[in-house]
Order: sequence, then structure tokens, then C-alpha cells
Amino acid sequence: MIGRTGESAQAKLSVAVVGCTGYSGAEVVRLLFNHQRAVLSAAYSSSGAGQVLGLVLGSMRNIEFSKLEEFEPARAAEKADFFFFAGGHGRAMSGVAQLIERGKKCLDIGADFRLKDPRQYPEWYKFDHTVPALLEEAVYGLSEWNRAEIKKARLVANPGCYATGALLALCPFLEKHLVATEGIVVNGMSGISGAGRTALELAYHFPEASENIRAYRVAQHQHTPEMEQELSKVAGEAVKVSFVPHVVPASRGLLTTVSARLTETMNDDDAFDLLYGRYSGATFVRVLPPGNLPETKNVRGSNFCDVAAKVDGRTQRLLMISALDNLGKGAAGQAVQNMNLMSGFDEAEGLWTPPLYP
Amino acid sequence: MIGRTGESAQAKLSVAVVGCTGYSGAEVVRLLFNHQRAVLSAAYSSSGAGQVLGLVLGSMRNIEFSKLEEFEPARAAEKADFFFFAGGHGRAMSGVAQLIERGKKCLDIGADFRLKDPRQYPEWYKFDHTVPALLEEAVYGLSEWNRAEIKKARLVANPGCYATGALLALCPFLEKHLVATEGIVVNGMSGISGAGRTALELAYHFPEASENIRAYRVAQHQHTPEMEQELSKVAGEAVKVSFVPHVVPASRGLLTTVSARLTETMNDDDAFDLLYGRYSGATFVRVLPPGNLPETKNVRGSNFCDVAAKVDGRTQRLLMISALDNLGKGAAGQAVQNMNLMSGFDEAEGLWTPPLYP
Amino acid sequence: MIGRTGESAQAKLSVAVVGCTGYSGAEVVRLLFNHQRAVLSAAYSSSGAGQVLGLVLGSMRNIEFSKLEEFEPARAAEKADFFFFAGGHGRAMSGVAQLIERGKKCLDIGADFRLKDPRQYPEWYKFDHTVPALLEEAVYGLSEWNRAEIKKARLVANPGCYATGALLALCPFLEKHLVATEGIVVNGMSGISGAGRTALELAYHFPEASENIRAYRVAQHQHTPEMEQELSKVAGEAVKVSFVPHVVPASRGLLTTVSARLTETMNDDDAFDLLYGRYSGATFVRVLPPGNLPETKNVRGSNFCDVAAKVDGRTQRLLMISALDNLGKGAAGQAVQNMNLMSGFDEAEGLWTPPLYP
Amino acid sequence: MIGRTGESAQAKLSVAVVGCTGYSGAEVVRLLFNHQRAVLSAAYSSSGAGQVLGLVLGSMRNIEFSKLEEFEPARAAEKADFFFFAGGHGRAMSGVAQLIERGKKCLDIGADFRLKDPRQYPEWYKFDHTVPALLEEAVYGLSEWNRAEIKKARLVANPGCYATGALLALCPFLEKHLVATEGIVVNGMSGISGAGRTALELAYHFPEASENIRAYRVAQHQHTPEMEQELSKVAGEAVKVSFVPHVVPASRGLLTTVSARLTETMNDDDAFDLLYGRYSGATFVRVLPPGNLPETKNVRGSNFCDVAAKVDGRTQRLLMISALDNLGKGAAGQAVQNMNLMSGFDEAEGLWTPPLYP
Repeated sequence: MIGRTGESAQAKLSVAVVGCTGYSGAEVVRLLFNHQRAVLSAAYSSSGAGQVLGLVLGSMRNIEFSKLEEFEPARAAEKADFFFFAGGHGRAMSGVAQLIERGKKCLDIGADFRLKDPRQYPEWYKFDHTVPALLEEAVYGLSEWNRAEIKKARLVANPGCYATGALLALCPFLEKHLVATEGIVVNGMSGISGAGRTALELAYHFPEASENIRAYRVAQHQHTPEMEQELSKVAGEAVKVSFVPHVVPASRGLLTTVSARLTETMNDDDAFDLLYGRYSGATFVRVLPPGNLPETKNVRGSNFCDVAAKVDGRTQRLLMISALDNLGKGAAGQAVQNMNLMSGFDEAEGLWTPPLYP
Repeated sequence: MIGRTGESAQAKLSVAVVGCTGYSGAEVVRLLFNHQRAVLSAAYSSSGAGQVLGLVLGSMRNIEFSKLEEFEPARAAEKADFFFFAGGHGRAMSGVAQLIERGKKCLDIGADFRLKDPRQYPEWYKFDHTVPALLEEAVYGLSEWNRAEIKKARLVANPGCYATGALLALCPFLEKHLVATEGIVVNGMSGISGAGRTALELAYHFPEASENIRAYRVAQHQHTPEMEQELSKVAGEAVKVSFVPHVVPASRGLLTTVSARLTETMNDDDAFDLLYGRYSGATFVRVLPPGNLPETKNVRGSNFCDVAAKVDGRTQRLLMISALDNLGKGAAGQAVQNMNLMSGFDEAEGLWTPPLYP
Repeated sequence: MIGRTGESAQAKLSVAVVGCTGYSGAEVVRLLFNHQRAVLSAAYSSSGAGQVLGLVLGSMRNIEFSKLEEFEPARAAEKADFFFFAGGHGRAMSGVAQLIERGKKCLDIGADFRLKDPRQYPEWYKFDHTVPALLEEAVYGLSEWNRAEIKKARLVANPGCYATGALLALCPFLEKHLVATEGIVVNGMSGISGAGRTALELAYHFPEASENIRAYRVAQHQHTPEMEQELSKVAGEAVKVSFVPHVVPASRGLLTTVSARLTETMNDDDAFDLLYGRYSGATFVRVLPPGNLPETKNVRGSNFCDVAAKVDGRTQRLLMISALDNLGKGAAGQAVQNMNLMSGFDEAEGLWTPPLYP
Repeated sequence: MIGRTGESAQAKLSVAVVGCTGYSGAEVVRLLFNHQRAVLSAAYSSSGAGQVLGLVLGSMRNIEFSKLEEFEPARAAEKADFFFFAGGHGRAMSGVAQLIERGKKCLDIGADFRLKDPRQYPEWYKFDHTVPALLEEAVYGLSEWNRAEIKKARLVANPGCYATGALLALCPFLEKHLVATEGIVVNGMSGISGAGRTALELAYHFPEASENIRAYRVAQHQHTPEMEQELSKVAGEAVKVSFVPHVVPASRGLLTTVSARLTETMNDDDAFDLLYGRYSGATFVRVLPPGNLPETKNVRGSNFCDVAAKVDGRTQRLLMISALDNLGKGAAGQAVQNMNLMSGFDEAEGLWTPPLYP
């Protein structure tokens, strides 16, 4: 039997995960496994209902015995005080609304509460938002930028993986108006777990995806509006970005390269100093000194986001680069970080395992 | 700053890792990071001496600040009470001898103390053993089979990765004489981290190793004698195996398929029952029921070894299969498990994180 | 426009591929592309009917303009004189029968005509054979072992990929009674394209299949009876094998390791000499001298099968190892080789491109 | 014995490859293998001198028997009329000069003759050019853009892989002044064979490179000046680009995403029409219609470059994307294409094999 001894179970926050057989949900379960202040008290999965989680996910065999159930908000409210939603876009809205009403705290790993303007949902996500009133209340859960609001929130919208990568790299410079707000180009390169566990498409069939590099949803990816919403807030003016996501043959990992025009001359040390100052005190953002560049290998399985910036003096542009684990800081890691903030726990609780290397 | 608060540092065992920039050594450091009863007090590396570990290994940046030193036994003895040796075959012998003499406990992840017969070293490892007296004292650290001796040992020899995989699958059947002692065939398939971090050979260059499947050291691999030594002990008679290791394009993971002739009729349920009974109480060996087969994905980054057996009724042979992480149960995980046993800690302390999936 | 000029189109054999959007079928089309004596005159695909092949398979864009059609034997007989069937087990039987009746030559890449005993079909393939009379006539298309019969055949059953690997390595020794007929253990390790293009299972989803090593259908794989059928023929007595297939994270490539007890003493040079002698004149079987071992990298994209043998003197067993491309010599390559033999062409026509390295 | 029969050897151009055990050199050898108009008459390799090429490269075993020699220009001039140089930057200069003087034609796959301004060599390549006079004469071998000059050239400088990808995508738009010359951002993602076969660095060790995504030489990559040189020529004014190369865990393949500001409104159909018109008659550039995007999988092992463009109407930028095989159109394939042009052969001779899929 694996598990901590000598702990007082009473003190723990009871947590439920809705959609816990997908990659993000499973990763939340994994992180909760060693969390000192929270305990998994209910596990929901529509595809796996009736089975034991540790048998659906072979990695959890013998260690995770939760019985999977079909999620039903009223019954679920009896089981837990904090809810993670990891079930796919458009599927959290109604459940969240019912749970918030019942006094529960909710964190949506999906996109249902990221955008402030409800009109963007039909445009970017092809669904109409059914509880637009909650959009206003929801806090965008980029932990390092909205920490104060997150701490007070009942409902947090976890940022998209690409948005997290782009915002953590770009915001510090945009905040200080060191880069121009037009002409920003964002390139993202993601591992394939970002596509989820259940969408079995030919494009993700191993023989197709291995040794393949490709762009997709060029200038049409649904993380674009949340990037722009948050960048505009930080910049104090409307910001647009041209975003191209790519898929590369990796399972986990997301690298983002942001290019923007410098508004004033700067060198690599200046750029480092700015990042370093902005993220001092931010446990999970590691600023790399000049000469170092982020690699997804170094953050694999963790909640870290490594960032660096490099001046292209020849073109007077700044290149901002970040590496994160799309299931870590890009999803479940940041979700647990936000739960910690919302619950008054240490921000790093349950997240302190070093990256898995190699 | 990541780390546990409110812990009493005094109570902790002070631990040193010799060779901590290699893959196995680095994995021990990673596991110690959250260990409640032990703390890394010295980090040795000949290639990295003078640098900070968290800068040599980018995954450890900002969280691991140990200064790497050149290992020197007399000075090292002042620094720690428990020593892991992870520096390559033939390099631990003399240091271990000096530390044992000084009353320290040692665990060698390498092969220097695995074989009881010193004459096997020149034959299989191409070096002469310089402290053969210690070979007798050393306990072979297959945790689930030698638990009692390990608990009392000053010196434990951690099994080879292939040996761990083969022994955990085969020993239960050999112990009960359910399979013949001749004609045993062992096939191992390993990820490439098993080759280590520093041996930069063309064969492990990404373009060469990706999309490549190959056998190597056929019938000549150095883990053969330790398999035979331990199998003979369990069987109560001399056992020989024909062992073929393979390299496949994965980073971590080791699958072993053992084939042996049945001495009496048996079905899949019988085989399961035997394994299940033998490993009841063994936290880290997960016995899969009939219809399930081990996969390295399910043990990645963990100390688990998944085992299963399948009867081939047509040929009256038994197929025993195990999956482990070559750096987990195949090296650093089992090493920490053994340290726990040697130190009176809970056997699973520091090892309870679920596998990283996917 | 890519293509050879100055060729006389009249002289060419008109060829049809049934199931040409699967991996094996597509590889036949690729190989036919530069074949001097044959031309693709009809392309069948039930999933792609109505579309242009070069748009269904992006790799063929702008170079392959065949319109895909639904296969119907009577109409197809008007279009071609030679038919490749690549559509999956159980799907070729009836079409082959109708085409043979119409005087056409057929090569089935699937299993429908591999087994002589019709009772094995329900046992291993879960279907009843509807034209058992043709099983007798069909020639098992292991080119190097049945060349004479293949040349005269109207119907050839292309061997399974695992069977090809095992037979090419093992037959030379079994033929000379140098290894025992009992206790033979066959281990196969295959890339994932062997699972086909259309079966989108979770197990082959990139995040699941990458970094995963596993066995499957242990002692139950359907290539077992064809191995035994052909081995028995070569040995002149009944031979059984215990076969364990594995999947490793590669797209193409199949390595086979066969272990058998030596009936007389032999060294590595003897083993080499035997293989070398047996395959002199066999263009596509490359026998590696002692000290060399097959690697799938070296045969990728080609019709080569590299073989080697190594004596395990300690256990008096012989290890026979082969590497091939499961879509090359393991499927489409051998299929074209057999078409060449059946049609009186040079055996290597269309197959002379060196492996793609790296 | 593999090979074409009935061919007249006299008519063939005798070709030498200098540096033929590297990846690019070996790929030229592979392509020459089936070339109807050229034959490999000398093979040079400093690391492999004295050995047979087919034993150094296991993929060539039994089919390529050339004896490797140390390259010496005077002696080499006796052996061949056309020379490929594939030995690394700075190593071709002097040999090329001596061979040109002796009336030979030369193609440098490396960078020694790509830049017109000799001052750029110390800046970007850290060596001084020793035969600057030849820089003027050398033709930049982007086949589709400089076809006429290449046909007349004695010396062609094969473009860098990244430059090929960027130029083929961007030039058509820049030529028509449809995108602005400032603010161009180029992102490249390359497989690891681009790093070569001999540089055994930790970064390319399989366990480090697999599951890793990273940028490198940000704003400092040596392909930048050749991109700018050729873009400026096409645009008729000075063009600068900000270029970020990335390494992803693939062996072959290079995807390039170029972002530039539109100077006038355009839609996806307009962009397609422009590309399609520009590359009509260009065998190896496949323009994908709107809704399709290039993937490296589709060009693997071939000389194709797939290109597409997508308008980002929200930001008034144009995204131009190309996919090629870094060893194909990015090196050896384009090199053979240029040899064909320089020698009056069909441009596609030896290059017509479809991509290897999957």
C-alpha cells in the first residue's frame, strides 16, 4: 500500500475531478495523490462510469481505487467542496453554474470561462454560452499575473496551454511598453497529448504523427482570443497577435516563440533583468540567464515554465521563448496551483516534484 | 522556493550520491528531493566538479543548489552516513571499501558487488575485483526477494535493470519448480537511457537510434551472471539462461519476456494466483490478472514493476513478462527502496508518486 | 511532371491494387511507380472510392492521379491482369476466386491463402474459409524458399511480416537439422505501421504508443500457424514454436530473435557459412558476418532482410536474428518481388532503391 | 546483385562525392544509385578512408562497393567530371578552386559559396574565405528561382535547408511586393539529421533529444545572411528577416513558417493562385490549395517541397508555410536536381521516387 502515514484526514479539502480519464483530468488526480491539504473524494467520467479509475488508467493500478461515476451536479455537490472540470470545451458551463450556486468553488481547465465577451464563444468555439453572467465573475487563472484575484475567486478559468506559454513570455515586456503592440507573431510547438486522449484521429495515429512536423489551425486557433484579451489588459490597449500552432512528434511539451518589435534599444542583459525582476517570487517561472534557452525536456512532468528573451539587434525585434509541459503548467499543474491559491494553501503544495529527466 | 515546510531536519539521514550527473544518480537526487527521512548532503561528480548541480542538469534549475565535488572517500565520510554509488562499473569498489570501514552504509547502483564469485568480474566486466572480501558481505538488492538480508546489510548491490526484470518475473515459478531449469530464454527490450548519459556513441545519436530496433551483446551481456546466480539460489540448483538484450527507440522503459518449459500443466489463472500470492505485500510489484499484459508506459517514472504470466498450452511453455522503468525499479527507484529498508524507513518512502502518464 | 520518358507503355503488365489506401497497398503503389515492366491500371479502396489517390495520400500529391474505385471482381477483370489484395484478412477470398476463374494472377498480401488447412482459419482468424479448394493451389510466397513454385503460380499468398522474419532466419538451420524442433522461441518486435492505417485504437494514439514497449497476443498471434506450417515443411517433421510479438515505438521495422537448441556443436563462423551459402544468389537477404547484428534502420524502406546468427555456447542454443521493414520485405516489397517472379521479370525490378538512411 | 541492366555505361557522367559518409553525402550516393545519366566513380571520406562505403553505412551493405579514399584534388580530377562537396563548412573552398581550374564542375552542399560578400564568412561562419573570386561566379542553387543561371554554371552553391524552406515560401510574395520587407519573421523546425552524423553532442543523444522541443542560435543562425541575400535580390531592395530555428524530435523533416505583413488585402485563394502560378512547371514544389497545410511526413525521403499560404485577416499578415526533407530538397535532393540542370539532364532524373510513407 502506497501512501502517507500519520496525516490527519479531517483537515483536507475534499476535491472532485470531472472528466478524470482524459489526460488533464488524470494529471490532476496524479498531482492530488501526494497533496497534503486536499484529497480526491469523487471522480467523474462519462466514458468510464462504473469502473475503477486505477483499472481504466493502467498507470494508476493498485494505487487509485476511486469508482468512476457519471457527473450530476446536485449529487456531486454532496461529495466535494472543490471541483476541477476537465471534460472538454462547452461541457463545464452548466455544471459549474449549479455548483457555484451551491457554494462550491470551481476551476475549469477547459475554455468555458476564459473569455469575457460571450460573443467570442460562437466565433471561436462554435457554441453559445449559456451562463454569460458567470463570465464576468470568473478569474483568468494565469497564476503569476492574477494571483490576488485568484485568491478571492469562487470560479477560475485555467488558461489554455498556448496562452500560458505566450503570456508568461510576453506580458513582462508588454506591461512596460518595451515592445510594440502591433506585429506580434506567436509560434507554438506542442506535443500531441495536447490533442487529448479520446480524439482518435488519423493525424495522431503513431505512424502518421511520428516523424511529422506540421502547422494547424493557422491564424484560427481558439487560444488566440484569450491571449489577446489578457495582453490587452496588461498593455492597457488593444493588442492583436498572429498565432500559428504546430504539432511535433512528442507526447508532452510546449515551446512558444514570440516575436515583437522593440520600441527602444535593449540588450540581452536588459531583457533578462526585466524578466528576472518580474518573476522574482514566482516559484514556477524560471528565468534563464543570457546564453540559455528553454527546452521542454527540462520541465517535463512539472509545473515549471522556463522563459528567456533574446534581442535580435539586426531587426530590432525581441524574441521571447518559453517552455512548459502542456499537461503541467499548461493544464493540470496550473490548475492545482490555482486551487492552492483559492484555498489558502502554499502555492506549491503538491507540485514540488522535480521534472522527470530524461 | 520549492520545498516542504515544518519538517525537522535533524531527524533526517544524511545521504551522498557519487556520480550524480549520470542518469541513475540524477534520478536518485530527484527521488531524495521529497524524501521525508533522508536529505542530500553531498553530491559528487568528476565531470561536473565545481559546478552547481541545478545548472548542470537543467531540470533541477532553481531547485537543487548542491555544489558538485570530486569524490574522495575520507573527506566524504565526514559529509554523510549513507552513500549511493552511481558512477559506472568498476568505479565504486575502492570507495565503498573505505566508507564501509568508516562505518558508513553503501548502496552500489553499479555492478561492483553483485557477483559472489570474483572470477566472474574479469570474464564479464573486464576488470579484476580489488576487494573480493566484500563480495561475500554484500547483499544482492532485489528488494522483494532479499528483504530480510537487505534490512541488516551495510552494503547492498543494486541489481541490474535487465536482471530485475527477469528475476521478478521468473523467480516465483522457479522457486516452486514449475518451470524447467534448462532451456530458459530471456529477451529484454530497453530504452536508451540505459546506456547512460555520457557515452555519446553514434548508435545513440537521435537520427540513428530513432526508428531503429536492434539486438546487442547477444548471449554476452554482463547481466547474465547475476541472473544465473540469483536464479540458482532460488531454484536450489544451477540455472543457466540464454539472454538477448535489445535496444528500442524509447528513452525510459524496459520490457522483459522470459520463456521456459512448464514442468507440469498449468493455466493462466494458476500462473496469476502464484504470482499474486508471492507478491502480496510487495508494494512495487503489480501482478496483472489474466488478459492483461505489462506495458512500460504504465510504470514510467515510478518504482513499479508490472508482471504477468501466460501459458502457451500448445508448446507447454510459460511466458513471463515484466515492465519496469530502467531508471526506476531498474536503478534509482530500487536503490532508494533498498536505502529505506537498510535504514528502517517505510519501504515506500519517497517513492509514492504515481507513474507519469502519458 | 515526374516520370520516366522513352518507355514503351505497351509492354507493361497492367496491375491493380485492391485496398490501396492502407499502408501495404500504398507501398505497392509507391513501388510500382518506378517499375519498368508493370503499371498501375486500377486502384481500389472502399473508404476512398470516388477520390483521387494522390489526394487521399498526401505523399502522392501531384504524382499519382488514379481515381479510386469500389472493387467489384467482374468489372475489375477488365482493367488489369495482375491483382494485389491488401485489404485485410478475410476480404480477399471471394474476389481472388472470381479473378482466378477469369484467368488473372493474384497475390494476396493478407492471410486468406497462407494456411493449407482450412480448419485453421476459424481457429486463428475467426472466419470460415469460403474457397478452401484454392488453399491447395496457392503458393506460400516466401520468395527465397519457394521461388520455383512462385514462378509457376497463379495465386501467391504473401507471408506475414513476423513469419517472414522468423522463417528467413530459422529455416536454413532447421533444414539441416542443426537445431532441435522442440523448444523454439520466437520473439518479434514490430513498428506500429504493422497495425495498419485505419484501425485507430487508443493503443496506437501517439501519446500512448510513444515511449511504450509491450507484448501482445502472447502465444496467440495469427502468424504462428503459418510459421509452423512452413517450418514443418522445411524440417520434414512437425515443428511448433512459441511466439511472442511486441510493439515498440517505431513506425516501420521488424526485428525477430529466434532461439533454438543446437543439436550439434557449432561456432559463429559455422553459422555464418551456413547462412551465407544458403542465401548466395538471394538478392534481398543480406547475411551479416560474425560480429555484426541486424538493425531495422539499415533496411528501412527497402526489400532487404538482414540476417545473422550467434552461438550461445554456454547454453548450447543458437540465436538467429533478422531485421526487415514490415512494409517492405514484410509486405509490399516481397509482394512486388513475387509479382516479378510470377511474371518472368527480373526478381529485383522496381525494388533496387537503397534503404532510406537515416 | 541489384542494378539496372542493358544500360550503356559510357554515356554516364562520372561523379565524385567528397564527404560521402555524412548524412548529405550518403543521400547523394543513394540518389545516384538509380540515376540513369550519372554514375558514382569516386567516393571520398576522411574518417572512412580505406574502407568500403557499403560497410561503413550498413544500409548500403552488399549494394555499394566503392572504396573510400582521402580526398586530394589533383588525383580526384582524374576520377570524375562532376564533384559534390558534402564535408562541412569551410572544407570545400580550396578543393573546389583546384577542380574548377582543372575544368571540373562542382556543387557545394555546404555554405562555402553561398554568400556573395566575403566579409560575411568571418561574421557568420567564423572563417575567412580563401577564394573570394569564386564567390562572384558561384550560382546560388535554389533550382526553381535560378534555373537559367544554374544551367550555365560551373560552380553551384546549394542553399541551406532553412533557406530553401523560407525562400520557396516567401519569394513569390516578395517578388510581387505583396508583403512588406520589414517585420518578416521566419520560424524553422528541423529534424535532427540536420545536425549531421559526426557531431555526437549530448543534445542529440537519444534520451536528451527525444521528447524535447527547443530553439537554438536564436537570431544568430548562419542561414540568415543567405536568406537575406536572396530575398533582397528578389525584392529589389534590402530585406532583413528575424529567424529562429528550432529542433524537434524527428530524424528528417523541416517545416518553415514565415510571417509577414500584407501590403494589400488578399484572401487565401489569391495567395494560392499566386503560388500556383509561380510554381507551375516546377516539378518539385507542390502548392497546396486553401484548407491544406504542408506536413513533413508527406515529403519524407523525397525532393518535394510542399508550400501553402494563409491570410491572417485579423492582423493583416500573411503566413507562408513550407515542408521539405532537410536531406532531400534541403540538401542532397536539390544537389542532384542542380547537377541535372548543370549537365543538361532531365531536371527530375534520379529523383522520381515518391516519398516514403508512413
